[in-house]
Amino acid sequence: MVHSFPFLKGHGTENDFILLPDPDGRVHGDLSPELVVTLCDRRAGIGGDGVLRVVRCDAYDDPAAVAARGAADWFMDYRNSDGSVSEMCGNGVRLFARYLADRKGIDTAKPLPIGTRAGVKVLRFRDDGSISAGMGAPRVLPETQVSVDEWSWPALHVDMGNPHAVAFVDSLKDAGSLASSPSYDSSVYSAGVNVEFVVRRGEHHVAMRVHERGSGETRSCGTGACAVMVAAAIADGAATPAARRTGIGGSTESRWQVDEDVTYRVDVPGGELSVTWTAAGDVLLTGPAVIVAEGVTQMASKPLATEA
Amino acid sequence: MVHSFPFLKGHGTENDFILLPDPDGRVHGDLSPELVVTLCDRRAGIGGDGVLRVVRCDAYDDPAAVAARGAADWFMDYRNSDGSVSEMCGNGVRLFARYLADRKGIDTAKPLPIGTRAGVKVLRFRDDGSISAGMGAPRVLPETQVSVDEWSWPALHVDMGNPHAVAFVDSLKDAGSLASSPSYDSSVYSAGVNVEFVVRRGEHHVAMRVHERGSGETRSCGTGACAVMVAAAIADGAATPAARRTGIGGSTESRWQVDEDVTYRVDVPGGELSVTWTAAGDVLLTGPAVIVAEGVTQMASKPLATEA
Repeated sequence: MVHSFPFLKGHGTENDFILLPDPDGRVHGDLSPELVVTLCDRRAGIGGDGVLRVVRCDAYDDPAAVAARGAADWFMDYRNSDGSVSEMCGNGVRLFARYLADRKGIDTAKPLPIGTRAGVKVLRFRDDGSISAGMGAPRVLPETQVSVDEWSWPALHVDMGNPHAVAFVDSLKDAGSLASSPSYDSSVYSAGVNVEFVVRRGEHHVAMRVHERGSGETRSCGTGACAVMVAAAIADGAATPAARRTGIGGSTESRWQVDEDVTYRVDVPGGELSVTWTAAGDVLLTGPAVIVAEGVTQMASKPLATEA
Repeated sequence: MVHSFPFLKGHGTENDFILLPDPDGRVHGDLSPELVVTLCDRRAGIGGDGVLRVVRCDAYDDPAAVAARGAADWFMDYRNSDGSVSEMCGNGVRLFARYLADRKGIDTAKPLPIGTRAGVKVLRFRDDGSISAGMGAPRVLPETQVSVDEWSWPALHVDMGNPHAVAFVDSLKDAGSLASSPSYDSSVYSAGVNVEFVVRRGEHHVAMRVHERGSGETRSCGTGACAVMVAAAIADGAATPAARRTGIGGSTESRWQVDEDVTYRVDVPGGELSVTWTAAGDVLLTGPAVIVAEGVTQMASKPLATEA
């Protein structure tokens, strides 16, 4: 059986995705993990870090899509390349917004709410062509430690909805081969952690490499860039402690705030992001989103050696 | 500047390519290395092991295309993912033939000549949907040796237009991490070598892993599968010495032949190939070729952070 349906491919700072337009939920219904894996296969399929199905909230019965009705027209049905369901992706949601602007005539002068499994996210189109996404408030937990081979560094534990360990290093080369997973304190990160290595490049300007749990080193990580900015702002004295309370597992969790919006440039291997910590407490991730191709698939659900 | 032009993506045993239809040579003219690199980038572009431009011999002034005029209508303008010009690819030429059959109405009942920089190749469409390509006669040179980490094996030196070292091993796991390049005798292989590790799976049935020079371990290598079949046929006594002469650099080169056509199944990580050594002295590579997507690009020649 051959699946033939429209797709687009694009990326945000080289975090790349296959977009599947499915406004009425009639093309894909419930997307099968097998089809997602086949699509994301970089040699036997189209290739991507994940799939973003573009469906109207009204046309999808996922509880998150149902909950978003009224607040958002469109729902980002995001799947990882292994076929699993995922909640949100800071680079993916910009590409999703780019698609709606380019192909669905969304008014780019207005904020664009998009339903996700992590709630409704609000996107904004910038004059320079970049797109911002509200990523929520950071949670800052006690310092921990990460290691690669014989090297160890203190690291700040920042939670952006997913866990991060942010380590400042003298050189990004110090982090050595990120092909080998960094070691971390598993009593702190029982479900694994995304590890960011950071160097300062100038005032309010840092560069990072990232090792994502489950994926290894990647070209970009949206929440990782946000965690890095938060750690840098705290280290630079741009943020101040607002409150302290007992957090996850009895650990001390600090609330930090900025008096006015603070923006950092965060260079990732796949490009350049900008992160703003607002006085209102939200973290905005801003960056490019580029569609590179559009077409139709001609995929066998399971390619055979004798495929005609 | 945005480049917008048609493309297809497909693969042969997971050796994947971007096809660029350009019959009259008007879309691409001389394909720039930069554009090839951008297209083949698996995250910022479409992604592929290489680009196959489909151009009529009459519409391309490459000396090989000029030489093929009269013998072949179509020329496979093959480029590696690094942008360099390449001569031939056994998996790519099948995909090229598949495209001509599916989209250009080629008569699949007849042999299809295709011009390449390694001469005109003749393709045949099989009833089971697979496609055969004549890969030329093998040259067999003296035994050599390859090593991975602390392991070493004797290896047969087979030249299929490009150099191969074929080593029989007890288990494909023995070859360990092919991420680290195998060591070889650089006095024999001054320009590098493709190393194949082989196990027997049954009568006239082998399985291989391959480390391609310049690329590392890959999912499939067409000439590698041919070299492996030749080495297995010699080891199994299916081929007999025909002549012996002084070859490259004064080394002894043996001519081997088979009395009747001999076929081996060669399993590669990306699928299954079949290799036939004919009594006429040619090696035929047979395998699948699958188009997975078709569309148009929307590529910036150099994607910018501010790409709108």
